[in-house]
Amino acid sequence: MKGQKRIRDYGIKIGELEPGRLNAITDIQGIRVGHQTMDHDSAKTGVTVVIPSSENIFKNKLMAACNITNGFGKSIGTVQIEELGTLETPIAMTNTMSTGIVTDALVQYMLESNPDIGLETGTVNPVVCECNDGNLNHIRKSNVKQKNLYDAIGNAEVEFFEGDVGAGKGMRCLGLKGGIGTSSRILQFEGKPYHVGALVLSNFGALRDLVIDGIPAGRIILNQTEVKDQPIKEQGSIITLIATDIPMTERQLKRVAKRASVGIIRTGGYIASGSGEIAFAFTTANPVPHEMKSDMIEIRMLHEDNLNLVFRAVADTVEESILNSMVCAKTTVGRDGNTAISLGEYMEAILKFR
Amino acid sequence: MKGQKRIRDYGIKIGELEPGRLNAITDIQGIRVGHQTMDHDSAKTGVTVVIPSSENIFKNKLMAACNITNGFGKSIGTVQIEELGTLETPIAMTNTMSTGIVTDALVQYMLESNPDIGLETGTVNPVVCECNDGNLNHIRKSNVKQKNLYDAIGNAEVEFFEGDVGAGKGMRCLGLKGGIGTSSRILQFEGKPYHVGALVLSNFGALRDLVIDGIPAGRIILNQTEVKDQPIKEQGSIITLIATDIPMTERQLKRVAKRASVGIIRTGGYIASGSGEIAFAFTTANPVPHEMKSDMIEIRMLHEDNLNLVFRAVADTVEESILNSMVCAKTTVGRDGNTAISLGEYMEAILKFR
Amino acid sequence: MKGQKRIRDYGIKIGELEPGRLNAITDIQGIRVGHQTMDHDSAKTGVTVVIPSSENIFKNKLMAACNITNGFGKSIGTVQIEELGTLETPIAMTNTMSTGIVTDALVQYMLESNPDIGLETGTVNPVVCECNDGNLNHIRKSNVKQKNLYDAIGNAEVEFFEGDVGAGKGMRCLGLKGGIGTSSRILQFEGKPYHVGALVLSNFGALRDLVIDGIPAGRIILNQTEVKDQPIKEQGSIITLIATDIPMTERQLKRVAKRASVGIIRTGGYIASGSGEIAFAFTTANPVPHEMKSDMIEIRMLHEDNLNLVFRAVADTVEESILNSMVCAKTTVGRDGNTAISLGEYMEAILKFR
Amino acid sequence: MKGQKRIRDYGIKIGELEPGRLNAITDIQGIRVGHQTMDHDSAKTGVTVVIPSSENIFKNKLMAACNITNGFGKSIGTVQIEELGTLETPIAMTNTMSTGIVTDALVQYMLESNPDIGLETGTVNPVVCECNDGNLNHIRKSNVKQKNLYDAIGNAEVEFFEGDVGAGKGMRCLGLKGGIGTSSRILQFEGKPYHVGALVLSNFGALRDLVIDGIPAGRIILNQTEVKDQPIKEQGSIITLIATDIPMTERQLKRVAKRASVGIIRTGGYIASGSGEIAFAFTTANPVPHEMKSDMIEIRMLHEDNLNLVFRAVADTVEESILNSMVCAKTTVGRDGNTAISLGEYMEAILKFR
Repeated sequence: MKGQKRIRDYGIKIGELEPGRLNAITDIQGIRVGHQTMDHDSAKTGVTVVIPSSENIFKNKLMAACNITNGFGKSIGTVQIEELGTLETPIAMTNTMSTGIVTDALVQYMLESNPDIGLETGTVNPVVCECNDGNLNHIRKSNVKQKNLYDAIGNAEVEFFEGDVGAGKGMRCLGLKGGIGTSSRILQFEGKPYHVGALVLSNFGALRDLVIDGIPAGRIILNQTEVKDQPIKEQGSIITLIATDIPMTERQLKRVAKRASVGIIRTGGYIASGSGEIAFAFTTANPVPHEMKSDMIEIRMLHEDNLNLVFRAVADTVEESILNSMVCAKTTVGRDGNTAISLGEYMEAILKFR
Repeated sequence: MKGQKRIRDYGIKIGELEPGRLNAITDIQGIRVGHQTMDHDSAKTGVTVVIPSSENIFKNKLMAACNITNGFGKSIGTVQIEELGTLETPIAMTNTMSTGIVTDALVQYMLESNPDIGLETGTVNPVVCECNDGNLNHIRKSNVKQKNLYDAIGNAEVEFFEGDVGAGKGMRCLGLKGGIGTSSRILQFEGKPYHVGALVLSNFGALRDLVIDGIPAGRIILNQTEVKDQPIKEQGSIITLIATDIPMTERQLKRVAKRASVGIIRTGGYIASGSGEIAFAFTTANPVPHEMKSDMIEIRMLHEDNLNLVFRAVADTVEESILNSMVCAKTTVGRDGNTAISLGEYMEAILKFR
Repeated sequence: MKGQKRIRDYGIKIGELEPGRLNAITDIQGIRVGHQTMDHDSAKTGVTVVIPSSENIFKNKLMAACNITNGFGKSIGTVQIEELGTLETPIAMTNTMSTGIVTDALVQYMLESNPDIGLETGTVNPVVCECNDGNLNHIRKSNVKQKNLYDAIGNAEVEFFEGDVGAGKGMRCLGLKGGIGTSSRILQFEGKPYHVGALVLSNFGALRDLVIDGIPAGRIILNQTEVKDQPIKEQGSIITLIATDIPMTERQLKRVAKRASVGIIRTGGYIASGSGEIAFAFTTANPVPHEMKSDMIEIRMLHEDNLNLVFRAVADTVEESILNSMVCAKTTVGRDGNTAISLGEYMEAILKFR
Repeated sequence: MKGQKRIRDYGIKIGELEPGRLNAITDIQGIRVGHQTMDHDSAKTGVTVVIPSSENIFKNKLMAACNITNGFGKSIGTVQIEELGTLETPIAMTNTMSTGIVTDALVQYMLESNPDIGLETGTVNPVVCECNDGNLNHIRKSNVKQKNLYDAIGNAEVEFFEGDVGAGKGMRCLGLKGGIGTSSRILQFEGKPYHVGALVLSNFGALRDLVIDGIPAGRIILNQTEVKDQPIKEQGSIITLIATDIPMTERQLKRVAKRASVGIIRTGGYIASGSGEIAFAFTTANPVPHEMKSDMIEIRMLHEDNLNLVFRAVADTVEESILNSMVCAKTTVGRDGNTAISLGEYMEAILKFR
């Protein structure tokens, strides 16, 4: 989007399903994405928010689930989603050390837009995710402030940048530059189009493992260039958000979230010990009212036999999102001269091997 | 039922809600319970089945969940219920060593009533639960045969015996005789009556811990009689089934199943290491068709704010079910002269302490 | 401690095991507890920290586990403990809206004491727990600041106050005043004394359910006084910390954490929908070095058959901790005149029923 | 082994680590594998057992964990392993409908070799896994008998056949013939060799997804031959066993089991809805005595920073095991003429694309 050259623009098509209009998580009606990027001196970090709905999400919660493939991470808000099956705030992403500040800001934001929270009604469950950008970003200097979360929310739009933006500014992925990436697919049920969209904050893996649609791109880069695989502990992580407008129950959404792993592993992940891998899935189809207007709520769920199509869409969109996060990111020099090269630099060499 | 003197007949009322017509799990429309009891020589065991629906349950599955508070147990079928959220067979209960045979019989029973299983369609997930009745029953002699499961199914009825019957024949509970017990409550939503019913196979705990509606019955018995608390490892377990006709999602049913612990702990349980505690919850309100007739299924769920009433009903019915399982059971002499005395023997002494 | 009248001082002894020297979580060598209490105008809140070790806990992590009985809560840090089985920071407790700020402060505190975090080594997993004190405390005004966490740490000591202090200042429990409480037990293994200690932040339940060592105290209070049970949604929660010096593996510690429920339910809890119930367990016996000095680590575990004794100690200390949290707390008038009466006011009336 | 042509014999090497002597799970000292194969008329099924130790495994349990990526399956014994962290019987594998009979036989086998079970001591937790071989095998006819489990145990040896043997006789994998496969790797810690071994029962996936070490083998076969991808629901499953002699705790073993997914997904799996994916991991390094000879047990665990090497070994051995299960299996014609072709038929065509 926004004129960036994405992996599909290199001729790489993941899977058999068609992408949505933008090939982005924002193809699901009502979703917007906003970045606040910090890029000065040794500060290479930021905040990215996903606004999941055009309505007051605290009053009209979205059915949601999360799946923790590897819990080596500090993401906040998973416990209550697991229990209550609803998302009631925007989802914020930032660096590992800034989850506290961003959580505080997100709570303030929710208080401002809901004067009843904490007085006439209960509290609110902020969802804040993180990856460790400490290789490029001087993460000990608490660069992120409450204001940055508000800025990211203010910047939210349907068409948004990918790569080294927002929370993705300082991330590394599979030995190269990582960050924010997205993708979507269209599915047909009952003769109508539905959507599955993914958005990742990619920060995992080793270069020698990088695979692009089956091409051993990492080994090609290592063989053809001077680049060396970093002997660092694979301390990275990946946050995956899956959104859909298909009606599902919380249990089905958990199954959906679990399939994020397929896309991650296809690109070269192996769920390394330090690679926190947390995925969220939510649907806009079964809103859950905060206030009880009637004892029961009418919802719909997809017949289980239809899930395989959804699972393929999840695997494909996550795989493509990771590749987009890498190919859209520019080469970045961070603290102490640490450098992460853009995948874009190597695409020509890689594509020769198709 | 069937003329047995239940805990309520002693003037003990658990909680504030009213029981259903039979004060039994069978107050939920369509449920039946059947026993096959073995009682000869050192064989003190049997099979109990809960038929959850009057329809073909494989074709019209019931939404279900299970919760494992303590997994020291050999119950079968929990894994798929957790994943798919549906119950597709009757639930059978027996002794620990007989789960294999009963599973085999239950699969055969399902094959006979569904000629498509394994040929035109997939397989079936039998649910078989167990407790260890090895103190009274000579569990090494494989007393239970495939036929016994069929007999238990054949015996299923709406009004059924509690206590030392079926799978409950050889169970001990809180130092006395345990077995099968049940109870139910009526709740009002949308101006209409709904039901919560429990059924337990009780086989846990130590006498000194027994509490009856707040009365320290175990300590009273130990003080007033010659009975000694058994220095056995508390190796028992308890299986709890919760049925309801309230519309819920699988996630909500899991929350319901988790509250079985409240009733168990109120009677004196402390989740001993050897006390496998597994609970299932299912609703008859949201049937899930095996075959896909349409892409989507319409279901309903209770608003979360209504759950506390349900949770109280679960706690109360499980507590009362355990007490019924004990007070309805007759004193039983098993293998090697091992004896479990009926709670009924002590009720007079206990009630003086009210 | 510190001259407060605790439940045992009223003649109530929970269980058969002997308490440790202080009958507190600090009976485990190396543990200290600190409070920072805010008590002005409508601010009735604060921070409590448990310092789990006298050493640098990031460098010498403690084996730990957590158990989430009810995930309706915003506690932070559980995900990584579940994955890695180690505790690497003090545990902080505060009100629901202040978890972000306290998390941020705890991260800063860890950065200051560990200059390598985020540069030469990875990140750190702060553990911050919460209950909603919004009935007494004006929780929308972000009363807690980063400084308060530092103050609570600075105040940490072996003998500490219970009741309406620190994070407990604004909590309600079982219709009365709740807060911080603690208790401990001594166990013998290998002929040597070991300890189990609990600390709770109590904020759950309804008055009519209150039970004190089997006495239906809640119903007594409602019958004997003008007090009315509050028709509020039972929105409270309870945080439980279990510490021990008994050698265990992470799996065993998870089993230990799960038994917190027993103590909670004995006092009248029923795991209400809004009652977030999260327990942590850690042992000081198997320290895990952050840096790898050798490929393997020697540890010890308790034989599983010994766990029942530990489980009884957990149930008893949690039960006693809750009662201590209530009886040590003074009657508190909070925002809008909301009032929580001390259990101490009713102890005389209750004890007549023994 | 036994003269079969394995994937490595085609020049395909998975990963960078060296295999053990046999490149099999039996490279871990004490492990043996036995098959009983049924191959007549429409019976294409059997039993495979993994004997995990040369000692009495009930008396000297092995530390173990399991991970359920997709619980659409009927495997038995996972619940207690999750709770107690020990394996106390051989692991048996068979078809979905025969788990009951094989469980019963395995319990009998354990009773015979342990006269105290059920009398002086507690019960035993059989582990029986399954996949649905109903496409080739007439699964409704209960072909497997108790005797077959005994035969499989009797046949156990260190060198064993792979492919269409034992429980693998009727399995399909990635559109071709599946079955039993194995592989191992050697790792160095403390200057000494340790082993990681895998064994799979493969029965999942669609032909078009098959990938062999990065080669899109499925698409090659579909393009080059008359073979058609079956429009069947991907109803298959995969059971993975990981064995090691590296000292680990139960938590670490769970992390190990979770990495089975990496190997599965690399070969073309996407965790289809019907693909039950259950993995077990156990170590021979920390035996746990059934009887308590002392209060504490000394064990060792790997430093967490060493786990990445183990995780790579798991991913690689599972990937290679799946490929071995396919390439060692002969083309099999089953019930109603249903046919699964051996991967071996296509290896020449596939290898041209390297």
